[in-house]
Amino acid sequence: MKNKHIFVAVIGASKATSEEARLAEEVGKELALRQVTLVCGGMGGVMEAACRGASLNGGLTIGILPGNSREEANPYVQIPIVSSIGFARNIMVVKSAQAVIAIGGAYGTLSEIAYALQIELPVIALNSWSMSQNGKSDSAVIKAENALEAVTKALDLIN
Amino acid sequence: MKNKHIFVAVIGASKATSEEARLAEEVGKELALRQVTLVCGGMGGVMEAACRGASLNGGLTIGILPGNSREEANPYVQIPIVSSIGFARNIMVVKSAQAVIAIGGAYGTLSEIAYALQIELPVIALNSWSMSQNGKSDSAVIKAENALEAVTKALDLIN
Amino acid sequence: MKNKHIFVAVIGASKATSEEARLAEEVGKELALRQVTLVCGGMGGVMEAACRGASLNGGLTIGILPGNSREEANPYVQIPIVSSIGFARNIMVVKSAQAVIAIGGAYGTLSEIAYALQIELPVIALNSWSMSQNGKSDSAVIKAENALEAVTKALDLIN
Amino acid sequence: MKNKHIFVAVIGASKATSEEARLAEEVGKELALRQVTLVCGGMGGVMEAACRGASLNGGLTIGILPGNSREEANPYVQIPIVSSIGFARNIMVVKSAQAVIAIGGAYGTLSEIAYALQIELPVIALNSWSMSQNGKSDSAVIKAENALEAVTKALDLIN
Repeated sequence: MKNKHIFVAVIGASKATSEEARLAEEVGKELALRQVTLVCGGMGGVMEAACRGASLNGGLTIGILPGNSREEANPYVQIPIVSSIGFARNIMVVKSAQAVIAIGGAYGTLSEIAYALQIELPVIALNSWSMSQNGKSDSAVIKAENALEAVTKALDLIN
Repeated sequence: MKNKHIFVAVIGASKATSEEARLAEEVGKELALRQVTLVCGGMGGVMEAACRGASLNGGLTIGILPGNSREEANPYVQIPIVSSIGFARNIMVVKSAQAVIAIGGAYGTLSEIAYALQIELPVIALNSWSMSQNGKSDSAVIKAENALEAVTKALDLIN
Repeated sequence: MKNKHIFVAVIGASKATSEEARLAEEVGKELALRQVTLVCGGMGGVMEAACRGASLNGGLTIGILPGNSREEANPYVQIPIVSSIGFARNIMVVKSAQAVIAIGGAYGTLSEIAYALQIELPVIALNSWSMSQNGKSDSAVIKAENALEAVTKALDLIN
Repeated sequence: MKNKHIFVAVIGASKATSEEARLAEEVGKELALRQVTLVCGGMGGVMEAACRGASLNGGLTIGILPGNSREEANPYVQIPIVSSIGFARNIMVVKSAQAVIAIGGAYGTLSEIAYALQIELPVIALNSWSMSQNGKSDSAVIKAENALEAVTKALDLIN
């Protein structure tokens, strides 16, 4: 019997800057090299770059899609899950993972960070959100300077 | 034929400080006095206080519940919607409303603020979250000092 | 404090035959005359006819919509809930109700009947589905000959 | 770049008779021998037997779980998706697949059959539901006598 795969979620917007895409692709590659399965929202931008990096390096990629068809998945998704529930699927990307790496910062990404913190999952941020409340900053999100550091920290925090 | 009701969402944690409960009850009352329907997650804490304020002042209260039974609703919910989809129901509270008032700041509240900003809904905050990205603060959330100001600003921004 | 409303769900396709629309409108009317709140999927066809019958007779109508905007609701929905989760919202229409009246028989309606039977809710059928298993018919769905009988049976089974 | 996997959904209750479990395990095995990925609800009964048959024969198994933790998956699920949305996740099991094999007949299974027929997916039934409407039987569900026939028909209908 095979064991359950370990999943790291890569979250970020469906439109990425070239720097965000570069970071995401490298994160995907580093995960694949460590036999970690990538889970994401399955669409373009940060998600596609991360799947590309993982898939081209022998990793397994899962995309939990918002719409009604597997055809909307980016070409590097090997396991397309057709959720059909729109952006409400964000919560599943996070809940299915053992750690989360957030790249860049659309509001959808912020909602996923919030869900991850709510269930006490490790969240590593590359150029992403910081939050504060009544002037007091929230230190739950862990910052990383580069893709390798993000992946290393994420995997360290799973164990 | 009757028109569709105008909804304002009140979001906040299921455990409230006494100050948060006071603010929420006053927000509920001010909404009711303006014939605005209150929508919330239907549970305790901020949600219950807001429903209490609305219901005791003749307002209509909707609770979109996470679980499988209307029995979990707080006693001031008149219209219990049994979503059965857990915290994924947060997105519906926000999407059903024409403006959002956030009170206090659990991570669930942060996820709802993020969803509201994503769909460009007015968000008024009472003692709630601020966000920044790469050191640059996000000014999309509108702060209010008290319940009356929050309700007034929310209704102004709908029109 | 006001009590929670009693809800009856009316389920049926978004395209209705004239006979189905006539039945649905009458069901809506009979519910309204008994101060019972109508919950449905909020769209056209059977749903619109039922909301019309209820709304024109002073009843309250809730539509749990599949999409992202309250604008998609039929004009007789007073309480539009914007689920944003597509057809997965069907389960909420059923779970929010204390009894279900099914009119006609699209496959979406069949899925809602199945959900209702799963949670042991009374299901009254007007020109709708019958099921059998290995040649043995399932008698859980209660047939009615007309709208008044359907409403009377539904309300009897709630108490 | 790897291609997207082909998925067949196996649906059935979380409690299985020994005959249903035998059928499910054989279906899982036959899918695995043809390099087809199995998707299911990830729980016990029919789902566990199917995952066991697939996993022990080198197949890949996906379980789309109703709850909040991957720990609830049966031991033969390799890819646990934590949906957190309860039974509303049934629709995803079906929508993610290219064909559906239904074994036995709880009401949850009936709801999944209905969803599959709604989106015009091939549905093969082993000891499962038949439906009729106003005395006219619905022939959309294809019957099979044994596991091999079910798998062969499912795969034929995908192409």
